Amino acid sequence: MEGFGFVRSQPVEFRDLDGLGHVNNAVYGSYLESAKVDYFREIVGVTDLQELGIVADLKITFRSPAFLGETLAIGTRIGQVGTKSLQFEFEFRGPDGRLVAEATSVHVAFDYELRQTTTVPDEWRTRIGAHESRTLARA
Amino acid sequence: MEGFGFVRSQPVEFRDLDGLGHVNNAVYGSYLESAKVDYFREIVGVTDLQELGIVADLKITFRSPAFLGETLAIGTRIGQVGTKSLQFEFEFRGPDGRLVAEATSVHVAFDYELRQTTTVPDEWRTRIGAHESRTLARA
Amino acid sequence: MEGFGFVRSQPVEFRDLDGLGHVNNAVYGSYLESAKVDYFREIVGVTDLQELGIVADLKITFRSPAFLGETLAIGTRIGQVGTKSLQFEFEFRGPDGRLVAEATSVHVAFDYELRQTTTVPDEWRTRIGAHESRTLARA
Amino acid sequence: MEGFGFVRSQPVEFRDLDGLGHVNNAVYGSYLESAKVDYFREIVGVTDLQELGIVADLKITFRSPAFLGETLAIGTRIGQVGTKSLQFEFEFRGPDGRLVAEATSVHVAFDYELRQTTTVPDEWRTRIGAHESRTLARA
Repeated sequence: MEGFGFVRSQPVEFRDLDGLGHVNNAVYGSYLESAKVDYFREIVGVTDLQELGIVADLKITFRSPAFLGETLAIGTRIGQVGTKSLQFEFEFRGPDGRLVAEATSVHVAFDYELRQTTTVPDEWRTRIGAHESRTLARA
Repeated sequence: MEGFGFVRSQPVEFRDLDGLGHVNNAVYGSYLESAKVDYFREIVGVTDLQELGIVADLKITFRSPAFLGETLAIGTRIGQVGTKSLQFEFEFRGPDGRLVAEATSVHVAFDYELRQTTTVPDEWRTRIGAHESRTLARA
Repeated sequence: MEGFGFVRSQPVEFRDLDGLGHVNNAVYGSYLESAKVDYFREIVGVTDLQELGIVADLKITFRSPAFLGETLAIGTRIGQVGTKSLQFEFEFRGPDGRLVAEATSVHVAFDYELRQTTTVPDEWRTRIGAHESRTLARA
Repeated sequence: MEGFGFVRSQPVEFRDLDGLGHVNNAVYGSYLESAKVDYFREIVGVTDLQELGIVADLKITFRSPAFLGETLAIGTRIGQVGTKSLQFEFEFRGPDGRLVAEATSVHVAFDYELRQTTTVPDEWRTRIGAHESRTLARA
């Protein structure tokens, strides 16, 4: 997927459908959460749930409904790294390449022991920078 | 609801429907879980999630589909208290009184620190006994 | 809730928690969906799922986590009625009055038979206008 | 997986965890539903949701909790084909081979137009028989 160095493959399951027969809107929030967990594990090297931080903001624009039997591609990248936060960007595409949804979410580093926000670790910054600049270089 | 001293009122939400337009089968597992949490809080006096123990067994028989706009009544009782376990019994009824589903679940007392099953506390036994025998006496 | 003529009472259920012990982010999307279904039924007079239309856009800002045992108040209003769309605004508050989340969603009238967007019915416009202006007048 | 000719690979997602940090009990109902949908599509040749029929009965025994990062194998077979019903049997195993859960569900053929149960089509019977006897022969 153009502009995305990390893509999650997301099959649509029966439980994801709602009473109108397509993937429910709220389920996209779960889909991108899984993409984010994958990104943290594979790119940033974080697997401890407690280190994942908190979501401050979520925005999804729905372009085309998705259906059972489809496997969506979820392009996932970090567009900006702030002092305490990461801005994720997502693009959902159907198997036919059509744009299904676009989303962004702001993720804040959080210290669950101190119960307060914290700065983004330098190690994260380095790994994210390396990964995303490789993607940019390829583009 | 006859034979049940504790009844949870469970509105059907849009998110509970599946692609066939009725309450999804797996959602009944969430409904009875909520009924169990309520029973623990109101009858047994337990609110700490860690004290709730684990589910060993779950059985649901589906009698009639449920739909958006309905509020179900979930009759909830403990039919048997073992050394380490509680046997829950549930009856789901529609607003028209029809039987929607019946279920049982076996709940095992669990010590999350020691990571092992434990005996049902005497205090639980006393409270459950008092509540359920009042129900029996009324019947 | 100030500025909202319609408020949904939303108990937090066990199934709404995630592995971090608070209400999962994506679940807010289901909560506001239920508030919207209630608003459509009680204010607009629409109960047929097929008439509910589609969601074009969803934005949630998370202010404070919510926990099991809390009942949230979801203030729900329509801020703007366009030719084909409705802009919903939501405010989630905890039982202590704290702001839990804010959200907006754009809802598009949709003809499921023709599979295309359609204009907002005049009857909806009238009912929404009457309800929301009463709220404004009270403020 | 011994005795199962059809196995679904089921990654545990973040949304599947509950407040106790492991896969929620009700989620197993969604997992086996997906396994059943896969079995219908790949073995029986049915993809239309309306043809899937209804679930009459569901029984799950939980043996060992499952966690984020694990991919479960769900062995899926039909143990018995009745006049109007199919008896599914499931076995959930962790990546280390441990038994996570066992389940059965009774599936009833249903005519959604006539709103009544119907007989299992001969074509289903033939395909299921061929598939399951191949599995038996291999054992």
